[in-house]
Amino acid sequence: MIRAALENWLDPEALADAVVLRDRAAIAAALNLIDDRRPEARTRASILTGRLAARPSARAHVIGITGPPGSGKSTLSSSLIEVWRGEGRTVGVLAVDPSSPRTGGALLGDRLRMLRPDGDDAVFIRSLASRGELGGLSPEAGPMSLVMLAAFDVVVVETVGIGQSEIDVSELADTTCCVVQPASGDTVQFLKSGIMEVPDVFAVSKADLGALAERTALELKEALPRRAEGEWAAIVTLVSARSGTGVSDLARALDAHRAWLEAGGRLDDRRRRHQARWILKRLREEFGAHGIDRLGGAEGLLTELLRERLAPLARHEELRHRVLSLLRSPEGEPT
Amino acid sequence: MIRAALENWLDPEALADAVVLRDRAAIAAALNLIDDRRPEARTRASILTGRLAARPSARAHVIGITGPPGSGKSTLSSSLIEVWRGEGRTVGVLAVDPSSPRTGGALLGDRLRMLRPDGDDAVFIRSLASRGELGGLSPEAGPMSLVMLAAFDVVVVETVGIGQSEIDVSELADTTCCVVQPASGDTVQFLKSGIMEVPDVFAVSKADLGALAERTALELKEALPRRAEGEWAAIVTLVSARSGTGVSDLARALDAHRAWLEAGGRLDDRRRRHQARWILKRLREEFGAHGIDRLGGAEGLLTELLRERLAPLARHEELRHRVLSLLRSPEGEPT
Repeated sequence: MIRAALENWLDPEALADAVVLRDRAAIAAALNLIDDRRPEARTRASILTGRLAARPSARAHVIGITGPPGSGKSTLSSSLIEVWRGEGRTVGVLAVDPSSPRTGGALLGDRLRMLRPDGDDAVFIRSLASRGELGGLSPEAGPMSLVMLAAFDVVVVETVGIGQSEIDVSELADTTCCVVQPASGDTVQFLKSGIMEVPDVFAVSKADLGALAERTALELKEALPRRAEGEWAAIVTLVSARSGTGVSDLARALDAHRAWLEAGGRLDDRRRRHQARWILKRLREEFGAHGIDRLGGAEGLLTELLRERLAPLARHEELRHRVLSLLRSPEGEPT
Repeated sequence: MIRAALENWLDPEALADAVVLRDRAAIAAALNLIDDRRPEARTRASILTGRLAARPSARAHVIGITGPPGSGKSTLSSSLIEVWRGEGRTVGVLAVDPSSPRTGGALLGDRLRMLRPDGDDAVFIRSLASRGELGGLSPEAGPMSLVMLAAFDVVVVETVGIGQSEIDVSELADTTCCVVQPASGDTVQFLKSGIMEVPDVFAVSKADLGALAERTALELKEALPRRAEGEWAAIVTLVSARSGTGVSDLARALDAHRAWLEAGGRLDDRRRRHQARWILKRLREEFGAHGIDRLGGAEGLLTELLRERLAPLARHEELRHRVLSLLRSPEGEPT
């Protein structure tokens, strides 16, 4: 039976159909397929994600949650999951824990099992390898979130750190939430140094600390960049994962951003832009600035990709082969 | 006269000789040459840095100073320069200020002029463009520090931020100093997330804050990774740029690290490793993982480069041309 299922899943279209039905083994198999760098697996992964992209869930929402270690981010994720489950939403989690890359997801799973001893089939957790010293995301995180998006109402991508991981997660999430702990005038100071623009929602954790947490929230609000008319103004919320205070407000703030994105087609635009940039970034990693130049330059390529209804893995494979053949042609000798 | 000098400097060897004599116009011209990406300029820059590498100053020391905005880093640099000048050392500064990339160096210059209204020809300041949202260093910072190293006893590379800029600066500095402000339990927390290994010296600024600064210094000391026998154990110092307290202790800590590096040839090893990695990083940016593979892979290339007495710009140009010709050869078809 298991064997038959596994063989069946060699057919990526059958695998996609099982993912949409939220078959846990199928989701695990699909995520492993994305992680597999062998050429044959890449072809199947392209077909899989292409088919999944054709049927997104109407309320699907990819939420990036990031914050420094010790900010209470992971406990907060668990509390949010409780809120969403209470509303009948299914949840997929991709979690990075650089201090223990193999067990990050397992730890979160343990926490959830403690909360719901009967288990919960509507929640799926997978750990992600972190990349580099700053907790950045691996290239596979993007396509993995697309797989999760086809199966669950909410997909949480949880990363650790401030800086690179925050930028990485904002490049694949619909909504980016940054968790900040109170008493951190210098964190606010640090955020001001350039990444204050990134988060759509801030969660000041440990609201049970009272005045200290409120002061931090105020500092954050004051440090927010001015937004033009029609742009999203970041929401700052106060939460306490321990007592549960503010967690549903945070869930509402995340929903509000999702609703804002959906108005006027912004959600579709954002996802398309993320996928186009993902392709460009992958090509740059493999072929460098020289390879991008041979394709006519980043700007032209991005414009071209943004006009398409994307199937990012397939398009990436196609462009890879185009670069490889261009690199061998003598035309346009560089200096 | 000026015209004659400029024409003369078209000869990169004459320019190198003038740099070593600390001719300010020559240093400025040499730094501009490094910044110039045109092929003809690249050839001259290769010759320039090759000749400069042949004659390093006996006490030359490249010091990276980094820390979040507001940590008092820039004021501290000025105070350190005062100490070094009092000892008769010449100082070159490369400074990044992401919030005002054009005036970063100018601001520091203004501060120094306030301190020494008569001017000081033995101090030279140049601002650096920052790269990306996280205050990282541009690729030219490495070769620029080599030019400065041939002219000055101490070269300070000042960057802003925690994370990327700290890693970038540690990849070109002999000694990396991280400035931390007191009252920042979460900064210590953040440093713990992976970059605690990077700095050789910590400077807890604003020592005039008393107990708060001392507690931060203690937290840092406790968070330091255990070092094996024979490895450098990071020094934590308390400084107040405002009152001048601790600045000469910091200067001694930086000297101590320089002396430790020099013992047993570590300084030479470190500079060679930095230059080899610089070459590899540039090649990866231009040609991607695919280009590096065509050169036989990163590991083999690094081993090869580490065996050489490097002239990094010339070697980089040579390897660029090797990749370009390999890319055009059909051998070793990739998938």
